Amino acid sequence: MNMYAIIMAGGSGTRFWPASREYLPKQFLRITGEQTMLEETIGRLGQLVSGDRVRVVVGRRHAEVTRRLVAGTSAGVLVEPVGRNTAACIGLAALHLRRLEPGALMIVLPADHYIANQEAFVGTLRQAAEEARGGAIVTLGIAPTRPETGYGYIEVATGSGEASCLRVERFVEKPDYETALGYLKSRRFLWNSGIFLFTAEAILAEIDAHLPELAQGLAEIDRAIDGEAYEEVLERVYGQLPSVSIDYGIIEKTSRSLLVFRADFGWSDVGSWQALHELKRSECDAAGNLLPANALAEESRDNLVYSQSGRRVALLGVEGLVVVDTDDVLLVAGLDRSQDVRRFAGREWPARPEPARPENEK
Amino acid sequence: MNMYAIIMAGGSGTRFWPASREYLPKQFLRITGEQTMLEETIGRLGQLVSGDRVRVVVGRRHAEVTRRLVAGTSAGVLVEPVGRNTAACIGLAALHLRRLEPGALMIVLPADHYIANQEAFVGTLRQAAEEARGGAIVTLGIAPTRPETGYGYIEVATGSGEASCLRVERFVEKPDYETALGYLKSRRFLWNSGIFLFTAEAILAEIDAHLPELAQGLAEIDRAIDGEAYEEVLERVYGQLPSVSIDYGIIEKTSRSLLVFRADFGWSDVGSWQALHELKRSECDAAGNLLPANALAEESRDNLVYSQSGRRVALLGVEGLVVVDTDDVLLVAGLDRSQDVRRFAGREWPARPEPARPENEK
Repeated sequence: MNMYAIIMAGGSGTRFWPASREYLPKQFLRITGEQTMLEETIGRLGQLVSGDRVRVVVGRRHAEVTRRLVAGTSAGVLVEPVGRNTAACIGLAALHLRRLEPGALMIVLPADHYIANQEAFVGTLRQAAEEARGGAIVTLGIAPTRPETGYGYIEVATGSGEASCLRVERFVEKPDYETALGYLKSRRFLWNSGIFLFTAEAILAEIDAHLPELAQGLAEIDRAIDGEAYEEVLERVYGQLPSVSIDYGIIEKTSRSLLVFRADFGWSDVGSWQALHELKRSECDAAGNLLPANALAEESRDNLVYSQSGRRVALLGVEGLVVVDTDDVLLVAGLDRSQDVRRFAGREWPARPEPARPENEK
Repeated sequence: MNMYAIIMAGGSGTRFWPASREYLPKQFLRITGEQTMLEETIGRLGQLVSGDRVRVVVGRRHAEVTRRLVAGTSAGVLVEPVGRNTAACIGLAALHLRRLEPGALMIVLPADHYIANQEAFVGTLRQAAEEARGGAIVTLGIAPTRPETGYGYIEVATGSGEASCLRVERFVEKPDYETALGYLKSRRFLWNSGIFLFTAEAILAEIDAHLPELAQGLAEIDRAIDGEAYEEVLERVYGQLPSVSIDYGIIEKTSRSLLVFRADFGWSDVGSWQALHELKRSECDAAGNLLPANALAEESRDNLVYSQSGRRVALLGVEGLVVVDTDDVLLVAGLDRSQDVRRFAGREWPARPEPARPENEK
């Protein structure tokens, strides 16, 4: 029973606007390291999954950039004609893996998360894989460090104690602040990391049981999967599949053994410029500025500069800013307003006037 | 006795860095309006001085851009081989004008000042010219509105009262803050605008009287002025001239009638990004942001954005910033730190690294 990795790279986030755009979401950016987040995710799995057992599932729009990124690896690319949420995405991947190997064990994980401790990450996945092999649905939960309202939570069953492998009581959607605070204090809730492990057979059986409409569509695709009509069938059927998350559609409803591993490997979904700044504290200068090498910051504190343009950047007497410099757009915002930068994405913009060029550059 | 204008465009300021550079100082930038400050200065004189009686004095480095800017006018360009301060600059211009017309009346003014009220400006100069025709040295003084420590002051003679034409008691250098505050309260001090009127004969006589070394050099240039050796003589002699300001070298020492006109035409030397912001209050949005047309500012107050690149700019949740976007450098600074941006000019910069380009733009 070989282990496979399904990397979901379908996100089209705008939280890193203007560095991320609809045509180039966060997983294709170099923000946490020298590689794109997708490449880092692939690399991180190297100790666990042989390269030819990695599949990146991606929307058609991003197929080309993804193929280019994985060209140096033996990973495969699965293209979704349109995005239909995680249940369909995982179901499609499971069809393909089941063809290769009926008992295939799947590690499903997002392409755009950050993991600080590689060893702990691999160790946790190894443990989790053991449980998944036995037919359980396994997820990874993160011990909350703040009353975050942006994540789903996993309540662990009472009596589970402080062990690393816990029984899941229930999944809960993003809570309000008061509820999140209660979760934090109770110590019985973990953040839902979006990382799951199960066999292809197990998850397809669950889809059959709980999402019959999805199951029917997947069966139609499955019948065409090795034939010449595959692309055509996929195109026709996939867009009609119900759009539902794996959490809500399957995992909250399953009667299988549902386990969560308490993960402690320095996880972040890097949800904003501010989150990136916090994540990279150790790379900041003495005044808390996270800067590219060609930036100067004087009498400035706790700023983040991100440059795609390579232009020089000078900061003087400023604090708590995010400055994002791209070829066509410049953002200057309060770091504490990071959650709101997405409002500019896709915005109608005032007409571009004659720039204030000095005469001798006319 | 015709009126001539000598526009001194030799400044190589760095106070508008990074929009202004050593190769492109403020007078060649479009910062106060749709034209460069030099063009605006020439245009402002149109009602008073016929175009062919305007001379722009400029350093060799900026001769080309200046010629291009004045190409549409009939103004002439006088090139200084090197900058030798205002006494030499004005002396050289006076030599040329005296050749054209012995009694030539000279209005001498900087190329990079802002004047709000064109009518009042012209009216004041007309009055001042009348006095200068009679042999007086006339200057324009600005009623101070703050205890500015960055300007020289002119003390008017007691008994001068509130008339517009006053006798000068003395010129004083840039004061400290306490002294400037005293000047402001006394109402007997005006800011030295750097705008002067006198005849070519008068100022050359004063140079003879008070700056014999300069007079000697100018005499040598004068002998060559219409000959083929002019450029060569100018090159050899000019760099050896004493470097002294017209204020310090002549005007503080003259025994001629020395008059100052109290000018009230909305003057500014536009000495910083902050000064520009204050100057253009009426063009700011309701929240006090001075923005180009392709910038958006949300929940942001009292910022100035200046774009030479034409890039879109988005501000979110920021206050009191100056953002200057050029093709190779980006500045983000506190507006109240405007005086300090010059520190970056000519600075050694960290090596330009690989920019954080997303993979698909490799």
